[in-house]
Amino acid sequence: MTLPLLTHRSNTLRYDRDQGTVVVLDRRRYPHETVFVTCCSLDEVAHAITAMVVQGGPPLAYVAGYGLALVARQHRTWPTEQQRAALIQAGETLRHTRPTADDLHHLLNAALTVASDALLRGDDAERVLADFVDGQVATGDAVAERCGRHAAQLLPDDATILTHCFAGAALNWMLSVAHREQGKRLHLYANETRPYLQGARLTAHQAHEIGVAVTLLTDNMAGFCFSRGMFTTYVTAADRIALDGSVANKIGTYQYAVLAARHGVPFYVLGYDGPDPATPDGAHIPIEERDATEVLQCAGVRTAPQGVAGYYPAFDVTPPDLVTAIVTERGVFVPAEMATYHLPSQ
Amino acid sequence: MTLPLLTHRSNTLRYDRDQGTVVVLDRRRYPHETVFVTCCSLDEVAHAITAMVVQGGPPLAYVAGYGLALVARQHRTWPTEQQRAALIQAGETLRHTRPTADDLHHLLNAALTVASDALLRGDDAERVLADFVDGQVATGDAVAERCGRHAAQLLPDDATILTHCFAGAALNWMLSVAHREQGKRLHLYANETRPYLQGARLTAHQAHEIGVAVTLLTDNMAGFCFSRGMFTTYVTAADRIALDGSVANKIGTYQYAVLAARHGVPFYVLGYDGPDPATPDGAHIPIEERDATEVLQCAGVRTAPQGVAGYYPAFDVTPPDLVTAIVTERGVFVPAEMATYHLPSQ
Repeated sequence: MTLPLLTHRSNTLRYDRDQGTVVVLDRRRYPHETVFVTCCSLDEVAHAITAMVVQGGPPLAYVAGYGLALVARQHRTWPTEQQRAALIQAGETLRHTRPTADDLHHLLNAALTVASDALLRGDDAERVLADFVDGQVATGDAVAERCGRHAAQLLPDDATILTHCFAGAALNWMLSVAHREQGKRLHLYANETRPYLQGARLTAHQAHEIGVAVTLLTDNMAGFCFSRGMFTTYVTAADRIALDGSVANKIGTYQYAVLAARHGVPFYVLGYDGPDPATPDGAHIPIEERDATEVLQCAGVRTAPQGVAGYYPAFDVTPPDLVTAIVTERGVFVPAEMATYHLPSQ
Repeated sequence: MTLPLLTHRSNTLRYDRDQGTVVVLDRRRYPHETVFVTCCSLDEVAHAITAMVVQGGPPLAYVAGYGLALVARQHRTWPTEQQRAALIQAGETLRHTRPTADDLHHLLNAALTVASDALLRGDDAERVLADFVDGQVATGDAVAERCGRHAAQLLPDDATILTHCFAGAALNWMLSVAHREQGKRLHLYANETRPYLQGARLTAHQAHEIGVAVTLLTDNMAGFCFSRGMFTTYVTAADRIALDGSVANKIGTYQYAVLAARHGVPFYVLGYDGPDPATPDGAHIPIEERDATEVLQCAGVRTAPQGVAGYYPAFDVTPPDLVTAIVTERGVFVPAEMATYHLPSQ
């Protein structure tokens, strides 16, 4: 099955072992332009994450992991203890790039452990780190496929699906499997997702490549469409899932969840590898506030007059009572099951 | 009290009796540019309305009324019955420009009656029509002031107000009176209001001129802000109010009303001269669908890839149970009072 570019993360990010650089698809410009950014230093890697060259919890975590490989290469002649210290410092820099998604923190912790072990046994930390992140990318792609396949089962035969932002590789799998393998009739409605327009660009493009009819809405239209019964299903990804079943995702996810509940439309969350075991509830999820000047412009054109401030919370939290089900690589769960998701008995 | 440009409609539209033209501020470009469009024919007047050179229920109705004066001038040498027929035909053309707001229909009906009477008594229909619409503009400005003054009374001393789209002259009066005369501390949060960005341009600019702090939000952020308790009050205008208290207004008004109700925030509608006596309930309000290509671009820049459709319902209907109060020139009413608003006993 031929799938769109963003379905496999290795299409969009890689570590160049010859050059010691991290190469990343610029998601701010895709699909209007397919341009890759080459990061040659830790600062350039961190900037690619904060400036949203790479977006989405798993992809930005992979780029951070490759950034550690780059740092290991640049310090490979240093004494072991100083190499370890440099990696730990680099990890702190990368950890502070984006606070909301949990993938970044888990990947950095695991990568630092792997690198430290390699250094202590005299191994090449750069190679070990690049191998480790390559493995994480492959694992993540498999998680996305399993999650998307489970989600496809939930769609009715004639599905009109509202989505917000770009729900990533699992969305591509859900649409592809439901449309091509199961023969379901799908119509995707994508909120444009201001200010970065991920819905207008990434979601609309990927769905169109899969062959699913896609209609774009501005972010103020879903309520009316719910009131007219236009949607059978509301689907988003999650940047972090808490153990109480709360879901942090792109700003706006909450308001459409409120509308879905009011109009009796199920809300399914593409939960990939499940909840963050370190986050007990939604109140413990930090909400990143980004540069408010983004809100004052659109597609590079200033929209607001001088003297007007902006406010840009990048995520919101949807409480578990508004979530119908969380779909992970293991199957379909109700929010209350997140508390025991990682326990051995599961 | 010095008030921003849009507070008095005569600043933004007029009939030029020397030239026989209708002169209209281009609200698509204001405040970035202050440009007036001169309409020399019925088609140009109709286009100024459909293309949103002029926006808002009362202002576009006034422009249509002046358009009849222009038509009367162009046919003044014709026999009386043919002049009357030309005006009635022009009225039909103008009536079909925008279906949702009721002001257009009421003003056209009244203007055609006035013109017909003038012609039958041998009067100059152009002058009578221009005089009539001038009077309507003056009356409408007074209605807006009374409505805004009543609304100012509803604001708490420390008000954080969410608004959507541009609620017109009554919003300017509400903010000016509450801020300057009553000394209340106000902070306005304006949704940018895609696709035409009336919030980012008109609302933000007018509030800033009045001296009220204004923060711009994209249309997907209000839900999060409600969940954080950031708003004391939600205020919009109405393009049409039905006798059951349903409110048609700019697309998105409904979804924020749902959120306001969920979070216990009152929703006040600036209702100007009250409900449309010819509209029994919300189901009888036609929702205009505009050119969907507007949704595929922002500020003149294409945002969506090729192959993606758009959908552009321009208004939505908020049911009366989500409306706390409707503020008109006569005072503050609950939605259930709209049914008897126009009865003589009132």
